Amino acid sequence: MERFEVNILGCGSALPTTRHFLSSQVIRLHEKLYMIDCGEGTQLQFRAMKLRFQRLNHIFISHLHGDHCFGLPGLISTLNLLGRTADLHVYAQPDAKNVFQPLMQYFCKGMTYSVIFHDFNPAANEIIFEDRSLTVSTIPLKHRVPSAGFLLEEKPKSPHIIREMIDFHRIPISQIPAIKGGADFSTADGVLIPNRLLTKPAVPPARYAYCSDTAYSEKIIPIIEGVDVLYHEATFSNADLARAKETCHSSAQQAAMIAKAARVNQLVLGHFSARYPDETVLLNEARTVFPNTVLANEGKVIIA
Amino acid sequence: MERFEVNILGCGSALPTTRHFLSSQVIRLHEKLYMIDCGEGTQLQFRAMKLRFQRLNHIFISHLHGDHCFGLPGLISTLNLLGRTADLHVYAQPDAKNVFQPLMQYFCKGMTYSVIFHDFNPAANEIIFEDRSLTVSTIPLKHRVPSAGFLLEEKPKSPHIIREMIDFHRIPISQIPAIKGGADFSTADGVLIPNRLLTKPAVPPARYAYCSDTAYSEKIIPIIEGVDVLYHEATFSNADLARAKETCHSSAQQAAMIAKAARVNQLVLGHFSARYPDETVLLNEARTVFPNTVLANEGKVIIA
Repeated sequence: MERFEVNILGCGSALPTTRHFLSSQVIRLHEKLYMIDCGEGTQLQFRAMKLRFQRLNHIFISHLHGDHCFGLPGLISTLNLLGRTADLHVYAQPDAKNVFQPLMQYFCKGMTYSVIFHDFNPAANEIIFEDRSLTVSTIPLKHRVPSAGFLLEEKPKSPHIIREMIDFHRIPISQIPAIKGGADFSTADGVLIPNRLLTKPAVPPARYAYCSDTAYSEKIIPIIEGVDVLYHEATFSNADLARAKETCHSSAQQAAMIAKAARVNQLVLGHFSARYPDETVLLNEARTVFPNTVLANEGKVIIA
Repeated sequence: MERFEVNILGCGSALPTTRHFLSSQVIRLHEKLYMIDCGEGTQLQFRAMKLRFQRLNHIFISHLHGDHCFGLPGLISTLNLLGRTADLHVYAQPDAKNVFQPLMQYFCKGMTYSVIFHDFNPAANEIIFEDRSLTVSTIPLKHRVPSAGFLLEEKPKSPHIIREMIDFHRIPISQIPAIKGGADFSTADGVLIPNRLLTKPAVPPARYAYCSDTAYSEKIIPIIEGVDVLYHEATFSNADLARAKETCHSSAQQAAMIAKAARVNQLVLGHFSARYPDETVLLNEARTVFPNTVLANEGKVIIA
């Protein structure tokens, strides 16, 4: 399946509730898994969602508050117990290595694999990771500590070959890569078959933005312009706007204002304060500004 | 309520499953809470069981494997967010302080309260904590790293006053403490009313032993002799005895052999390996040796 999936493992804010786990989500693309944030309990939710540890190689940590990274030691230990051998790459701010490595050295003796920390600068908007399937760039956010969101962009896909046309013109397999790359085809009789008759355009690549934790910040708008899905923190309701400002968080409606200004397709609200018995108030406030809004929830899978 | 409650927050072993959380339990006595072990996710389970953070002042950590202590940073952070001011006492082996304090210093800036680490020697059987309600002693266990169980003994209670007899003899309130302490009473007429007519004996104090993680070790038998409830790890079934020996864990039947030899009242099995889809096999194997055995489970409350 070639869809771009966002699996919500946890979407509560720092105080635990009986309804939400702490921040973590897993993007699934071409059967590879990419984790964003790793709050306490992430490994439990990972198992509960029946994701496969061996497909996870990259973890991106938005900022160094405990509710976004205290699940790392347990996850790293578990992968060790499972006998993992492949490197695990953790992308985070420079302090992460200093903070977590002593813990790993103490608790994970005889590691079967390596954890490689890659530093990034949360104040810059730059590509920090790239593989065959996607690129990940940082989105500078505005929070009490340096914080970065992540823009995950699927790479442009090759157009689809139209099987019947290939058969009809007896095009040899050796020519397929060139045709996927845009080339026309000349038959033995010298007839030119234009590429547009041999292929149909690929599905546009998915673009997903994760923005948490952050105060309302219009600076992110040009970076996330037109993404398919925007996950934006929505810690508070309008009634608690003063508290949002004080703690450098956003209200649901502010998230919607960003979604609207950036002309995204869909907005997903998350990082809910423990004070709301349910998040309907947040959803309603956001929808007055940006109708295509949904609430994140543990176990939910969003298709970008 | 004067009962001695053991609340099971988590009873799985190191690998997470969808069925069990990691090791932690909370003893409730006279509305005070005492935590034993604090695996990842403990604060979530604590909330889920509707326990009250402000009643928790003492945490005992059996050994420094991640599945027994990786919940500490998150719990400590949460108490800080809640604005706690009372000291929190953590009883653990000396390394615990060195390992967790740097993490707290980084993540819990501006702490509203103090976390005080108390070292204990896991190789000794000695009292490490005492208050008006109970004493806690260490039980040296046999594991891959130094590990100690805990014996929690309620202090002897005063006998109950028989209200009608006090009224009948018009005994002044000032005499009650002495009578509770065992004194007889002389009426104004010089008649001696013996103490046994004025009081009925107190309920015997509860005794509870927590033994995890440990290989089969007969050395603990005299220490836990006759406890009301023994929680003993039962990581493996008989079929996996070789694996139990190799990893310094116990089988369920070995736990039952300890329970029988120590003449405890009830055995609670816990610390289950992830390999069993359910623990009926463990329960059955234990019951062949010690019938009054139950399985721990998340959310279960056991009365000692």
